[in-house]
Amino acid sequence: MKPLDVLQQSLHKRVLVETKGGRSFRGVLEAVDQHLNLVLTGADEVVEDVTTPHTGLTLVRGDSVVYISP
Amino acid sequence: MKPLDVLQQSLHKRVLVETKGGRSFRGVLEAVDQHLNLVLTGADEVVEDVTTPHTGLTLVRGDSVVYISP
Amino acid sequence: MKPLDVLQQSLHKRVLVETKGGRSFRGVLEAVDQHLNLVLTGADEVVEDVTTPHTGLTLVRGDSVVYISP
Amino acid sequence: MKPLDVLQQSLHKRVLVETKGGRSFRGVLEAVDQHLNLVLTGADEVVEDVTTPHTGLTLVRGDSVVYISP
Amino acid sequence: MKPLDVLQQSLHKRVLVETKGGRSFRGVLEAVDQHLNLVLTGADEVVEDVTTPHTGLTLVRGDSVVYISP
Amino acid sequence: MKPLDVLQQSLHKRVLVETKGGRSFRGVLEAVDQHLNLVLTGADEVVEDVTTPHTGLTLVRGDSVVYISP
Amino acid sequence: MKPLDVLQQSLHKRVLVETKGGRSFRGVLEAVDQHLNLVLTGADEVVEDVTTPHTGLTLVRGDSVVYISP
Repeated sequence: MKPLDVLQQSLHKRVLVETKGGRSFRGVLEAVDQHLNLVLTGADEVVEDVTTPHTGLTLVRGDSVVYISP
Repeated sequence: MKPLDVLQQSLHKRVLVETKGGRSFRGVLEAVDQHLNLVLTGADEVVEDVTTPHTGLTLVRGDSVVYISP
Repeated sequence: MKPLDVLQQSLHKRVLVETKGGRSFRGVLEAVDQHLNLVLTGADEVVEDVTTPHTGLTLVRGDSVVYISP
Repeated sequence: MKPLDVLQQSLHKRVLVETKGGRSFRGVLEAVDQHLNLVLTGADEVVEDVTTPHTGLTLVRGDSVVYISP
Repeated sequence: MKPLDVLQQSLHKRVLVETKGGRSFRGVLEAVDQHLNLVLTGADEVVEDVTTPHTGLTLVRGDSVVYISP
Repeated sequence: MKPLDVLQQSLHKRVLVETKGGRSFRGVLEAVDQHLNLVLTGADEVVEDVTTPHTGLTLVRGDSVVYISP
Repeated sequence: MKPLDVLQQSLHKRVLVETKGGRSFRGVLEAVDQHLNLVLTGADEVVEDVTTPHTGLTLVRGDSVVYISP
């Protein structure tokens, strides 16, 4: 099984996305491609313990991603 | 549905584009390609709480992008 | 024998994954691809001696990886 | 319309090019390719409020570019 | 003769691998590919004069490598 | 006209090459390829106002280049 | 003439290789490929004015290279 196939199990579920530079997102994973570009809905963005809620969808660029976890 | 297809829904709408190095843009998304190169119109650029309005169009290089949000 | 073939021997075994930026993970390696994208289960994330346990699976992006060790 | 096609509208016009590392250029855009390699003429280079005029043409490497704006 | 062919002469011999970020490894080179992904056995990892011995194999990601030396 | 074609006009002429990390070179441009790998002859290297003359040719790796100017 | 062809003239001659991060090497260039991966023999490594002689061959990863000079 390939890593990106495993990620399909997390579609439509809430995930934590840690990105480079100390920024993380928690939201529902709605789409992902082979570059790890991600679409989240209802995401909360966290930078240094400050949480900013996003409305609608958030597209996170794949090469900013460090890890994705449920 | 692929992440970049989802982004088509944001065409001609106002988006927030966060880039590496603490620079962000708010403007109307007029064009995007598979590298996440973006064209915004009427963009405001924000660096450390200082806002600079851009006239006309702004092309943001895709590999500078961290996330895009409405 | 190729390096990524050697890594197949570590599948379903506990490994240490050191990533850029001083973050490491210890967990069971469940999947890996040619970019070194990895899926771990039951991972503990360690940043500056603070350990955070992850539930379920963790996908680590390959280009964040510095080394993998059992 | 693709982002790089939009940029064709700025050919032979004065643009601002912001690059990584806090360096920017203002000059007339004479050529651009798909990597965002750019040729400017009559460019002024600005680093930390110090302006250095360039004579002739300046080729800016595409992967240094953050954004281009008129 | 190509650089990566030269490296074949170091297979099954002890090498020093210097990586980005001030981390180095000394171990026996068991496998290498065209990206310079490396497998070492019996490696000692050195960061700021602190040596950590690894058991079993260590896979070092090629794009972390600065140089390899016997 | 493509940016790299424009650069052909600077062959065998003295150019300034600014690279990442605050290092620049002034020398005669003798060769260039599509990656912006450059060969200079008679180059002076400048780092923080200290000039080091090079004898013979200097090959500058393209991905270190920020801009090239006559 | 292409930059990498020019480099063939330096084969089996002593060169200076400056890499990212303030590390340089002086040694005899024995092999080079299109990525600028290099093999040096009898190299001296210099970091902050401290010289470390290498025995045998040293493979320097191409993407660490800033410039090569005789």
